[in-house]
Amino acid sequence: MTRGYLIPIGGAEEKHHEPHVLRRFVKLCGGKQARIAVIPTASELRDTGARYEQVFTEIGVRAVKALPFETRHDCQREDWLAYLEDVDGVFFTGGNQLRLATHLGGTPLVHLLKRRNAEGMHVAGTSAGAAILSEHMIASGDEGPSPHHDMVVLSPGIGLTNRLIIDQHFRQRDRLGRLLTALSFNPYALGVGLDEDTAAFIGPDDVFEVHGSGAVTVIDASELQHSSMDRAHKHDPVCMIGVKLHVLVEGASYDIRSREARPPR
Amino acid sequence: MTRGYLIPIGGAEEKHHEPHVLRRFVKLCGGKQARIAVIPTASELRDTGARYEQVFTEIGVRAVKALPFETRHDCQREDWLAYLEDVDGVFFTGGNQLRLATHLGGTPLVHLLKRRNAEGMHVAGTSAGAAILSEHMIASGDEGPSPHHDMVVLSPGIGLTNRLIIDQHFRQRDRLGRLLTALSFNPYALGVGLDEDTAAFIGPDDVFEVHGSGAVTVIDASELQHSSMDRAHKHDPVCMIGVKLHVLVEGASYDIRSREARPPR
Repeated sequence: MTRGYLIPIGGAEEKHHEPHVLRRFVKLCGGKQARIAVIPTASELRDTGARYEQVFTEIGVRAVKALPFETRHDCQREDWLAYLEDVDGVFFTGGNQLRLATHLGGTPLVHLLKRRNAEGMHVAGTSAGAAILSEHMIASGDEGPSPHHDMVVLSPGIGLTNRLIIDQHFRQRDRLGRLLTALSFNPYALGVGLDEDTAAFIGPDDVFEVHGSGAVTVIDASELQHSSMDRAHKHDPVCMIGVKLHVLVEGASYDIRSREARPPR
Repeated sequence: MTRGYLIPIGGAEEKHHEPHVLRRFVKLCGGKQARIAVIPTASELRDTGARYEQVFTEIGVRAVKALPFETRHDCQREDWLAYLEDVDGVFFTGGNQLRLATHLGGTPLVHLLKRRNAEGMHVAGTSAGAAILSEHMIASGDEGPSPHHDMVVLSPGIGLTNRLIIDQHFRQRDRLGRLLTALSFNPYALGVGLDEDTAAFIGPDDVFEVHGSGAVTVIDASELQHSSMDRAHKHDPVCMIGVKLHVLVEGASYDIRSREARPPR
């Protein structure tokens, strides 16, 4: 049994003109044979699910259906859970990641997603939908490139991986500092900063390939020699010595286990 | 003969209430015995020189004088050059670094500053005055954390060191991307991103210590495994693999030759 891909996307992915990232997700799910479920829970806009149904229909799939889980009670709806037993891929839309965490966290829906991803179902998410995929999620934070005490609020995500902390709109919203701050607590996880219209396609071997028009900034704090987070006061800058940084573009890849980056072929 | 310190400051340093960085510069120059020259050429404001005369007088020095070099012809004025033969420290104000480069570049003033710094005179500069200190200077660039083709314009500075590329207002103006871009051309130099009210005190042994309320972000690309700058097209993101990053705060130090960071003692 091979685990399905995880595909965090940095938000604002191209949907109509050249939907490079979404098309690649569809191809992974079986192309014209793909069955896709869209979970628009993060969004407060009524038509988000319908918009993505249209986008995936335009790209060309066998079936696509939005499942608008709105309450924790919805996350037990047997008809929707049954639908998820048969899809090739799930797509989380953007919006507010705390809506996802508070509505979905600990429900039968999350248990099902974990099991189905382990069985081979692919799970993609954009923006808030990307953040929620990991065990430790950035719930909110401040802008700026250098890490500061109190700069970031972490929350449990749905936990399809515990190896990453994902941030999105990375270039567009100046988020290096909050990602560094998140890692300054505990350098175990890899920091993955996704630009808009850019995705990390994380394979079952924990190697990911970058696709899209922007970059993925990888922050590897595994060889951190010093973090002053334990001693920093509120609003203080945090000292971090020995962080590795890679900026990866279309076609470049990264092995999360060995922590090795490879340039585009 | 021991070289004088170079002290790039990230701009907006505290001047009256707790002038930690400026006071440290004065102390280095001899404290109450210090003789300081202020070069306000970067600024287009008439009173910049006079303001710093007042600031240094308040801190307490033996003598301080602003030398408002306005033209390339001014940079040969014998009375002002003679004054610089006797000072302990020179302070470049902020403003537009291209005013400094175009007015001072290649004049007898710059030759004198290089010789006097080699003889032990300290040279500090804030904001534009920090950028100008190095051989390769960031003249202008775009905001954002990830490197892009055409993101930065380099220009020769006054060349008191060729080991650094300095950027300022680092946290406040989101400049990681332009500093990375500057290094993607040639990873020899060390990238030094200075937050406001924060300085690197670079000693004659090329070890610097950080002082001020913000952080100094050090970008070490010496072990860069890959840069796509040679192949990137206009506006493309640039792939960079193997960058080291350190965020240093008050009291932390960095050895530019061995490329080793040390936490605050």
